[in-house]
Amino acid sequence: METARHIDSDLRINPQLVRDVLVRFIKAEVTRTGLLRTVIGLSGGVDSALTAYLAVEALGKESVHGVLLPYRTSSADSRSDALSVVADLGISHETVGITPMADPYLGDDNSLGDIRRGNVLARLRMIILYDVSARGKALVLGTSNKTELLLGYGTLHGDMASAINPIGDLYKTQVWQLAEFVGIPKRVIEKPPTADLWVGQTDEGEIGFTYSEVDRFLYNWIDERRSEEELESMGFSRSFIEQATSMVVRSQFKRRLPIIAKVSHRTINVDFRYPRDWNS
Amino acid sequence: METARHIDSDLRINPQLVRDVLVRFIKAEVTRTGLLRTVIGLSGGVDSALTAYLAVEALGKESVHGVLLPYRTSSADSRSDALSVVADLGISHETVGITPMADPYLGDDNSLGDIRRGNVLARLRMIILYDVSARGKALVLGTSNKTELLLGYGTLHGDMASAINPIGDLYKTQVWQLAEFVGIPKRVIEKPPTADLWVGQTDEGEIGFTYSEVDRFLYNWIDERRSEEELESMGFSRSFIEQATSMVVRSQFKRRLPIIAKVSHRTINVDFRYPRDWNS
Repeated sequence: METARHIDSDLRINPQLVRDVLVRFIKAEVTRTGLLRTVIGLSGGVDSALTAYLAVEALGKESVHGVLLPYRTSSADSRSDALSVVADLGISHETVGITPMADPYLGDDNSLGDIRRGNVLARLRMIILYDVSARGKALVLGTSNKTELLLGYGTLHGDMASAINPIGDLYKTQVWQLAEFVGIPKRVIEKPPTADLWVGQTDEGEIGFTYSEVDRFLYNWIDERRSEEELESMGFSRSFIEQATSMVVRSQFKRRLPIIAKVSHRTINVDFRYPRDWNS
Repeated sequence: METARHIDSDLRINPQLVRDVLVRFIKAEVTRTGLLRTVIGLSGGVDSALTAYLAVEALGKESVHGVLLPYRTSSADSRSDALSVVADLGISHETVGITPMADPYLGDDNSLGDIRRGNVLARLRMIILYDVSARGKALVLGTSNKTELLLGYGTLHGDMASAINPIGDLYKTQVWQLAEFVGIPKRVIEKPPTADLWVGQTDEGEIGFTYSEVDRFLYNWIDERRSEEELESMGFSRSFIEQATSMVVRSQFKRRLPIIAKVSHRTINVDFRYPRDWNS
């Protein structure tokens, strides 16, 4: 259990304003599709809890369905934390275990290694979530925050897949602030963030930085466009800068669509890229 | 078996020129990533066969690995056609059946319906293909053609998922021309296109148009930007135009990234969208 997380002054948000913007965003984007319901994979973590809270604010609790997707190594705490969010919001939910789909491929041992195994699990969850959304004529809401998206700390076509992502422009330390403001259970906010893909995994252990330091860095580099010299003078070491920038650059492929070879005048994702509301 | 497919004059390509462009594209894009190998899901159809052929031309047969991903209802012809491509090109291959992963979720009956079931299968294939690529430090090559991509006749995060797609700017009738030029086995080119997601499925039966007519329409609408009046005067009925345009508009979400709510000055996929070769 962490205590007294440091939030850098650069990262402070006006939570009421941000909540209002995000609630309006969800309402507008969901309405625009003509669908009425949303589906959220509830991991027990703060990102999916906040997304669910915002969706209920925007659409009402009848329009939000939580899906718990445990694997046999998932922690019991993850489940009880997810259920506390369900109870708190009064939304419907279901549990679909992914072990019967995963284990025929993964086997009992961990011959694939943690990364490949984690990607298979994240993508199986995507399959169930998209299928549950198809069953209920609902939209999958994304739960990836800006820190994860920039560092590439997520699975392409797995947890990064969604129709609409309300929290993708919030750094993790900003997710915490907003989560506190809207009243997410304290336990969910304060526990160490983890993808729970293997026992003992924590985000900060795996990424190698604390969210507090990497958020401050990313904000100043990406949002404020500060130079390497400026970042060094702010106290970031050269090795930290190299490591963090390299994570962002190397994961660029996760933030873009497949690259299509151009042979015509109008190529998909190049010059044919109408807005989604084209013709409407 | 179809005979003498009609290729509209608008859709005629110079196959030698197009082949050269696509081979150079594959070489350049794969080299740029620093990886040396590619992985292709071989369905037995002409799109994946053509992609494999182009990849071998670009990188050599040692750099191309074919993966067969049958489900228990997949046709024996699909398998033998895929193997004929493997033999023809002399590439390595493996078969990973998806039934043990699929059936715990799908069950024995078809209570999900064909569409949901088809999406689950296409996404399971994506999981295996991406995992095989991770194992071999390889890139997944895409095999979706322009007709499918525009009509949305494909599964998001399934067969539409790839790192690099060499044939995504070729209409299906152009794929046929290029496939003939490069010497893909005739049987593979001439058989009725099918996603083979259920017994008896054919693309043209499911889409409701022949590729020959819909390609001519899409080319004139998308590439030539002709108005509805012009399209009608070319012989397309109002109901055909309505149906085809509606398929393109309704599937727009499959051709774009998740929509992220903007709350900062630099939002991923909005104003933070560096080219993939940024810093290199």
